Amino acid sequence: MLGSTYGTFTSDPRRARAVACGNLPAATVHGRAATPGDLDVSGRPLYADAPDLDRFFRPETVAVIGASDAEGRPHTGITRKLVDWAGRVGARLYPVHPTRPAVFGIPCARSVADLPGPVDVAVVLVRDPLPVVEELAEAKARFAVVFASGFAETGAAGAAAQARLAAAVSRSGLRLLGPNTNLNAFEEFREDLQGPAIALITQSGHQGRPLFTLQELGIRLSHWAPTGNEADLETADFVSYFAEQPDVGAIAAYVEGLKDGRAFLLAADRAARRGVPVVAVKVGRTETGARTAASHTGKLTGADTVVDAAMRQFGVIRVDGLDELQDTAALLARARPPRADGVAVYSISGGTGAHFADLATAAGLSLPTLAEPKQTELHQWIPHYLNVSNPIDNGGHPVGDWRGRKIIDAILADPAIGVLICPITGPFPPMSDRLAEDLVAAAEETDKLICVVWGSPVGTEEAYRSTLLGSSRVATFRTFANCVTAVRAYVDHHRFTTAYRSPFDEAPRTASPSSRKAEALMRPGQLLSEHAGKQLLRAYGIRVPREQLVTSAAGAVRAAGQVGYPVVMKASGARIAHKTELGLVRIGLTSASQVRDAYRDLTDIARYEDIDLDGVLVCQMVERGVEMVVGVSQDPLFGPTVTVGLGGVLVEVLHDTSVRVPPFGEDQARAMLDELRGRALLDGVRGAPPSDLDALVEVVLRVQRMALELEGQLAELDINPLMVLGRGQGAVALDALARCG
Amino acid sequence: MLGSTYGTFTSDPRRARAVACGNLPAATVHGRAATPGDLDVSGRPLYADAPDLDRFFRPETVAVIGASDAEGRPHTGITRKLVDWAGRVGARLYPVHPTRPAVFGIPCARSVADLPGPVDVAVVLVRDPLPVVEELAEAKARFAVVFASGFAETGAAGAAAQARLAAAVSRSGLRLLGPNTNLNAFEEFREDLQGPAIALITQSGHQGRPLFTLQELGIRLSHWAPTGNEADLETADFVSYFAEQPDVGAIAAYVEGLKDGRAFLLAADRAARRGVPVVAVKVGRTETGARTAASHTGKLTGADTVVDAAMRQFGVIRVDGLDELQDTAALLARARPPRADGVAVYSISGGTGAHFADLATAAGLSLPTLAEPKQTELHQWIPHYLNVSNPIDNGGHPVGDWRGRKIIDAILADPAIGVLICPITGPFPPMSDRLAEDLVAAAEETDKLICVVWGSPVGTEEAYRSTLLGSSRVATFRTFANCVTAVRAYVDHHRFTTAYRSPFDEAPRTASPSSRKAEALMRPGQLLSEHAGKQLLRAYGIRVPREQLVTSAAGAVRAAGQVGYPVVMKASGARIAHKTELGLVRIGLTSASQVRDAYRDLTDIARYEDIDLDGVLVCQMVERGVEMVVGVSQDPLFGPTVTVGLGGVLVEVLHDTSVRVPPFGEDQARAMLDELRGRALLDGVRGAPPSDLDALVEVVLRVQRMALELEGQLAELDINPLMVLGRGQGAVALDALARCG
Repeated sequence: MLGSTYGTFTSDPRRARAVACGNLPAATVHGRAATPGDLDVSGRPLYADAPDLDRFFRPETVAVIGASDAEGRPHTGITRKLVDWAGRVGARLYPVHPTRPAVFGIPCARSVADLPGPVDVAVVLVRDPLPVVEELAEAKARFAVVFASGFAETGAAGAAAQARLAAAVSRSGLRLLGPNTNLNAFEEFREDLQGPAIALITQSGHQGRPLFTLQELGIRLSHWAPTGNEADLETADFVSYFAEQPDVGAIAAYVEGLKDGRAFLLAADRAARRGVPVVAVKVGRTETGARTAASHTGKLTGADTVVDAAMRQFGVIRVDGLDELQDTAALLARARPPRADGVAVYSISGGTGAHFADLATAAGLSLPTLAEPKQTELHQWIPHYLNVSNPIDNGGHPVGDWRGRKIIDAILADPAIGVLICPITGPFPPMSDRLAEDLVAAAEETDKLICVVWGSPVGTEEAYRSTLLGSSRVATFRTFANCVTAVRAYVDHHRFTTAYRSPFDEAPRTASPSSRKAEALMRPGQLLSEHAGKQLLRAYGIRVPREQLVTSAAGAVRAAGQVGYPVVMKASGARIAHKTELGLVRIGLTSASQVRDAYRDLTDIARYEDIDLDGVLVCQMVERGVEMVVGVSQDPLFGPTVTVGLGGVLVEVLHDTSVRVPPFGEDQARAMLDELRGRALLDGVRGAPPSDLDALVEVVLRVQRMALELEGQLAELDINPLMVLGRGQGAVALDALARCG
Repeated sequence: MLGSTYGTFTSDPRRARAVACGNLPAATVHGRAATPGDLDVSGRPLYADAPDLDRFFRPETVAVIGASDAEGRPHTGITRKLVDWAGRVGARLYPVHPTRPAVFGIPCARSVADLPGPVDVAVVLVRDPLPVVEELAEAKARFAVVFASGFAETGAAGAAAQARLAAAVSRSGLRLLGPNTNLNAFEEFREDLQGPAIALITQSGHQGRPLFTLQELGIRLSHWAPTGNEADLETADFVSYFAEQPDVGAIAAYVEGLKDGRAFLLAADRAARRGVPVVAVKVGRTETGARTAASHTGKLTGADTVVDAAMRQFGVIRVDGLDELQDTAALLARARPPRADGVAVYSISGGTGAHFADLATAAGLSLPTLAEPKQTELHQWIPHYLNVSNPIDNGGHPVGDWRGRKIIDAILADPAIGVLICPITGPFPPMSDRLAEDLVAAAEETDKLICVVWGSPVGTEEAYRSTLLGSSRVATFRTFANCVTAVRAYVDHHRFTTAYRSPFDEAPRTASPSSRKAEALMRPGQLLSEHAGKQLLRAYGIRVPREQLVTSAAGAVRAAGQVGYPVVMKASGARIAHKTELGLVRIGLTSASQVRDAYRDLTDIARYEDIDLDGVLVCQMVERGVEMVVGVSQDPLFGPTVTVGLGGVLVEVLHDTSVRVPPFGEDQARAMLDELRGRALLDGVRGAPPSDLDALVEVVLRVQRMALELEGQLAELDINPLMVLGRGQGAVALDALARCG
């Protein structure tokens, strides 16, 4: 059977996953499952319906507006393809043309109004689609597909025209694909391939072509959504829809820009809950890429680090190349969940095994050493001087006879092994052909994943074309790198979905009492003073040093007595940057006279530097800990984001920070810390005690809550430093810069 | 013509490079060119002859010891291949067998002694090769090739047997390839391919197979050296030899372990001087890979960061996958030097251009924005609303007619552009076939590099197989990633060779006066005290603080007066680790009484902690700067190495260091600093002044000199911290730990 799953065939990949993972549907376990209309406290939706695209992909009626059968007209080829497509999906097709009586022998309607009734899909080929789309909305058509280009991708005038198109459909039940899309949604898919398929979403038709041609290698495709400019239907809509189609094993997406961050997250969440892998190329790693992509489809690309984090949070597997997209999506679509994470590398050459093992372990795959009895078993067939601990080197000769299959079966029988990878770097028919046949035969009888790398650069060899690609149970790659990337994604995906809890079910829906206190402190458009910033933190239960704002030397001395010596004194005002560099911070003051002198110095400096003070802060000295930064920024795609980083020189020189898009839970807050390169500092170096990670995580979560509750009011927050003390000692915000929206 | 260079054909790639780069042979420009027998001050050779392997690859006489033509014997197939090979290269073949009268109709010699005279190549098939090799040495044979395995790759006994083989040849003029090698040196190469070729070196036959099969794609191969266990001839010998062969355009190597670090560097230096690119996969990124590789060929893999640095220093291009090795070596072998570094990305889809540009710029390639007049010119043929600034999007249609070629020629005519890359992600014959033809035709008439990425995963398309692979002037890739990697290597290689100066010509050959002073301080096998360590630095002209070693409180006060207040005091002794943590360092002492108290405290602590002191150091306080570390370590492959890193938390937590293998010049010392992630600290952050980079570089070079001159005596040195002051202020070593060998 072509195109079934690797390993034992299962008709419903989600059921297979649930059995393997032992997990109940995450949506019902924690919190209250979000339903349509639910909003989080920032006003963003917690739920998005998957649009019903059944009638788009399997319409009963299709209209082609601007149909032609005249020789040499560009619409003629398109019309012919649409006629063929309608025939294949069993839809009735209506050509629409004001003057032609018939197109390809099919009688024409004169206009949209002239159609016999509402159509499911109307393909609009005319150059100025707006009037037609308005007519279609009027005529209760379900879907319009607009090919015309010259919209948001061309600049401001085009963007305005696109907005008019979007407005025309938003007022009606009509959904629109495009503009600037093409025929890809109506391609002919191979129907002789079975098993879970790849559903493809692309914002550029040409970029989807290599994935489409995967069918020639036996990989099944079920859908192709070329979203173009996304005036209405967007990538997220198709992710949501495809995640619910029983024959879709994986979603592959080529993305240049996202239309709406939250919509994308909700779609990714839907896929994650259902265990359907989403693999994506997202252009925009560099400024050049982002700028070029924006000019291509007129969409925002967003800050790449934020997009990257958002994808990771929701289990979207991001890859860089279309070849990786193909190989990873094909593997994830078809392979059932691993029975074990261990990877066995088996080859006819010690060199090949060493090389592959090097790349695989560098990528984080686990190659467990085989147990002694297993090694003894393998040495029945493999010369004793060869290494069979994993990687397993058979020296070549055993693959030429009956021993070859015995070895493969023995490796697969090892309970620590979930994946067998056999790299065959070069064709050497006496060995490689028989090896390929044995691997294909073994794959018919195992529920474990077997991967082969056929490393020949030629690729016309019989063993590759017929034996390996002819099998739907062996996953065949052409390079070590892509095999390693795909298997790593496969292991990660199943680990992720097993542990997944949707953060949307637990996201705050109503404002906390903290927000009322906080709102009273906000000053629209202004930077808050350090003192006000700290009060904001205090409102959210984040510890700040004991401190008092004073406006006289005598007041300072009084305050120092109440705060407790030694004290720190800082000038306080709304717009003071670089306090330390200006000499506006004094630390370690131990007496009333030092405090009095410091007060005079600070106010003198402020006067000379022409800085407005609202007073001087007299603060408790906090013992030494690890300096961190925690902050809030605004992303054009996703809204507020939360950042954590290592303070001092690490954040300034190395930008060692990690970011998350709300909503996220404690698991992600902890994962942020693990992403920091200087993470070891928190565990204690040079005899320092381990830091209070729980307190740090709590601050991150409280800052998230603040960012959501003060949406639109808090533009930016920078706690720098947050002094994280030893375990059980908490964390104290020593300074805070807050900018109101 | 198949297999010529890309761009305008040139029969001698080295001459073409010299013309483009305008450089004289580097060996004669600087310093004194090293000659055979020259040693550096550490006793390592500064010159290695390239072995004369002409008679190995083109022998006149070949003997096969253990030849067979009996049905079913494994030696029979091998003998047949050797008979064929001898026929092809025009050599006379002598089978050697004690009892057979003839093999394949060729009369046998009974033994090596029975051969009619010295043979050029003797292939030894017998299981116990040692006696035969001894006879061959006696008989003045030039080369022996030993197939037998079971040597160093199997453990200690095998390693001893291999040492006996090596000893047998080292006493004679005989050179030996193997043991544990195979027939790859005697493969049949296609002779219909022309132009510069790839010469291949592999330590595993199977791993070389995909490169060998490149010939089926029209890429010429000239040699294959399967080095096996390298008892005698090693990778370095073949690099040296291939670098001097006029038909070799690039050397591709698959390396599991290096036999001798210096030999490899000298070979890489020879290739670098001649502008011959060396591209290598080196296993050992991870501990698993290194261990497995060692067990495969019984060789050391060395510390990977050191191998990596050594390769970079001498311009060896390291890649991870065999597919990258193929694509990069093929490009570098055939492409003449770039006329400009600018890359133009040209495609039929804005999406493809954006995606490729993203990956290319992320990899550091330069995509210059085309000048306005050039854009205007392109818009003659490309619709005005498409972006042609670079990447250039033609929207598809222009490639279908005469405009396609016009566009390509116009891009190639831009003087800022040295490379045109056209990614064709999927086959769409109406466009992609004509585009491929136009690119191939344009390549016939330009001396610039044209690269095509044929992204279809199928690879049987006519446009790919016939049009693109049929051209020797277009470089064809299958993935964006490999194209980007290869083009980056191509640009880097030519930049590197243009600027290359051999460090061997300038390496120190005789000991400096510093070394005599330093040797007097060394204490074999011991750790030096801080004071002695600093004297060692002072001997090499590295600044240390004014300091005195004292043994009484009164002496301390006297010393402080001479050193000048404020002072630092530190306990001094041979084996004191973690001085700061133990409280054995006091800083900022400003009065005699503080000095007296500190003396008492330090000696008390030492007594309680049972630490032997040789006294207390009274040191000048040094103003604040950037804390760095500079050190010497020993690598099993390369001997002494020099490390520089950022001090304090950066080196402890992030291991932010850079390493070099001597000999290296000032350019590499500066490059080390550029490799540091925290490099910006040296340029001044938070209002700090820029650091004295010249002084830091000078310290690195003096430490290199010390490491070489004290070879065998100085096992390890760790200057931590080296305080680098502001520009023009110098650098001061505040502490030094030296371990004698």
